[in-house]
Amino acid sequence: MSHARPTPLIRSLPSTVPFVGPEVQERRIGTHFTARLGANENVFGPSPKAIEAMREGAAEIWQYGDSASHDLRSALAARHGIAMENIVVGEGIDGLLGYLVRLMVAPGDAVVTSDGAYPTFNYHVTGFGGTLHKVPYKGDFEDLPALMARAGEVDAKLLYYSNPDNPMGSWARGEEIVAALDDLPEGCLMMLDEAYVELAPDGTAAPVEIEDPRVIRMRTFSKAYGMAGARVGYALGAAALIAEFEKIRNHFGMNRAAQAGALAALQDDAWLAHVQEQVAAARGEIARIARENGLEPLPSATNFVTIDCGRDGDFARAVLAGLTARGIFARMPFVAPQDRCIRVSCGRPAELARFAEALPGALQDARG
Amino acid sequence: MSHARPTPLIRSLPSTVPFVGPEVQERRIGTHFTARLGANENVFGPSPKAIEAMREGAAEIWQYGDSASHDLRSALAARHGIAMENIVVGEGIDGLLGYLVRLMVAPGDAVVTSDGAYPTFNYHVTGFGGTLHKVPYKGDFEDLPALMARAGEVDAKLLYYSNPDNPMGSWARGEEIVAALDDLPEGCLMMLDEAYVELAPDGTAAPVEIEDPRVIRMRTFSKAYGMAGARVGYALGAAALIAEFEKIRNHFGMNRAAQAGALAALQDDAWLAHVQEQVAAARGEIARIARENGLEPLPSATNFVTIDCGRDGDFARAVLAGLTARGIFARMPFVAPQDRCIRVSCGRPAELARFAEALPGALQDARG
Repeated sequence: MSHARPTPLIRSLPSTVPFVGPEVQERRIGTHFTARLGANENVFGPSPKAIEAMREGAAEIWQYGDSASHDLRSALAARHGIAMENIVVGEGIDGLLGYLVRLMVAPGDAVVTSDGAYPTFNYHVTGFGGTLHKVPYKGDFEDLPALMARAGEVDAKLLYYSNPDNPMGSWARGEEIVAALDDLPEGCLMMLDEAYVELAPDGTAAPVEIEDPRVIRMRTFSKAYGMAGARVGYALGAAALIAEFEKIRNHFGMNRAAQAGALAALQDDAWLAHVQEQVAAARGEIARIARENGLEPLPSATNFVTIDCGRDGDFARAVLAGLTARGIFARMPFVAPQDRCIRVSCGRPAELARFAEALPGALQDARG
Repeated sequence: MSHARPTPLIRSLPSTVPFVGPEVQERRIGTHFTARLGANENVFGPSPKAIEAMREGAAEIWQYGDSASHDLRSALAARHGIAMENIVVGEGIDGLLGYLVRLMVAPGDAVVTSDGAYPTFNYHVTGFGGTLHKVPYKGDFEDLPALMARAGEVDAKLLYYSNPDNPMGSWARGEEIVAALDDLPEGCLMMLDEAYVELAPDGTAAPVEIEDPRVIRMRTFSKAYGMAGARVGYALGAAALIAEFEKIRNHFGMNRAAQAGALAALQDDAWLAHVQEQVAAARGEIARIARENGLEPLPSATNFVTIDCGRDGDFARAVLAGLTARGIFARMPFVAPQDRCIRVSCGRPAELARFAEALPGALQDARG
């Protein structure tokens, strides 16, 4: 017998990562990407006020962060017109998803998601021994009625739904989601991932009554607020549900400078508007480049554009490989038939110009 | 039936926090502490080069951190003379402890620790359903032979041991720990917490052969390196054990600026030496203040001094309350008979002067 005895669950798990990071890819291929357009990072960056707050925070980093994230939660509560008790701040949505799955999912418990939706959620479900039930997309949309029906069939404890959707960029109206909640099976909690919602048209955010026990929403400072590397996300939900996180979360897990940066970012509405404009312009430019190359850009309510390459997954993978070889970091949906597409994050004009320069060759090679 | 159905384990857990943070205390009492000496933060701060790296990192925070923490692990591997595969970087030791417990502890599994040792470890064990077996301290030292004997009796999967010890500041020679490993029961992994080791006398770090499967060591940038708020820790162990973390860790969980800061901090040996000097001087000053007030400072290999107040836990708690009321943030051991002590972190001269000013009144009130 060895000294380390991992649990039976751990022994059953594959060693897998939800995503291969761009730095890992760069080390594999031995060169640096000239355009970082694969992780839906916000290249326009955070508010200058947030940057300044984080710079000031660097000198104060000898102190642990506030375990309650009081000031940030207070500002978020005011912004959303809710109580602080309805908000938990965590280490990005990824971290919060891990906590949520741990709260709800014991080995063998059923969880429903869309086939091809966020792999990090699936990673957590598998990691806690849950059984994933995957529902196909309907066209390029997550199929909420089908997800709810499946949840009822398998007695799911969690239903993952993102709006806007990643990786397709599609979206539903928030009011429709709230109306659909009446069909959510008893005993099933909807995890509504609104990571991209600040970049979506008005009316996309679901107007959930905050004490509605059927849904927990998650938001992040990684996308519209441009702070992916800071690791700040938050969940909104009924106070009794939010209180459950206190039992298991890493109370001193937040980076102190990141807390300060998020607070400053939240208060700079002018910068958010600037980012929204830049992102909209970049979406237009990515769409133009796609059409110029005979490809079909899908409508997007996010900071990326998913481009239908018009053939199958093998073809799109070849296009992606061609882009990688030309120094462009992009990604693509993992599952058919969505894997006929590549996914390109909004970049600055210079980066999109490099994408435009690389795409024809990548397509030519793929058609090779 | 409600919509959120927490697991039976979660329903069984109390809502508890391992520590009440200083900001939470300040909000309760309605004033700010004038000396922050309770969380063993390093008030001398990180290397100026680390601060500069984090300041530069603020502008790059739109990018996710490197999921592999490649550069930091590479530098740590060089420093320790081991391979990168022997190192996992995580969100502080607290985060890594959570991962380690999740890897090893299924509900009902036995874990051994000292009664009064690190509560955050216990929080994780309880949170994953493990059964904690606590062994009394022997005097002011963790009792390694007794811990190992108990581990054998209860078939423990993990044994927690810290060197130097928190909250007592005591320490063992690293060679003695390695020699004692021969008595570690089969099937039990020793978790050796070396959070404070850079502040301890030479010979305190355990000279573990890196592929020794019996022990995993944890280190941090929170203490000697002065970056508690950054959330950067790492574990050292056999490659096969370290690889297990890949199955469950939050791959994109590291703050990007913190990664850069830790790398810079690691390379500034002169600053580390400066901190070691400052900490040693502060330990001496805290001891002097204690003796001046008729109290007994315990020897310390850390950045805090544990002070024996000479009576029972109620008395020490009253002293601590008196310090709190006078604006001094300090803490104390939770468990008798160690709770006859208070624990004071190394501060700058001005902060220690405020402690010296407050202590006589706090003692007088406690003697009441």
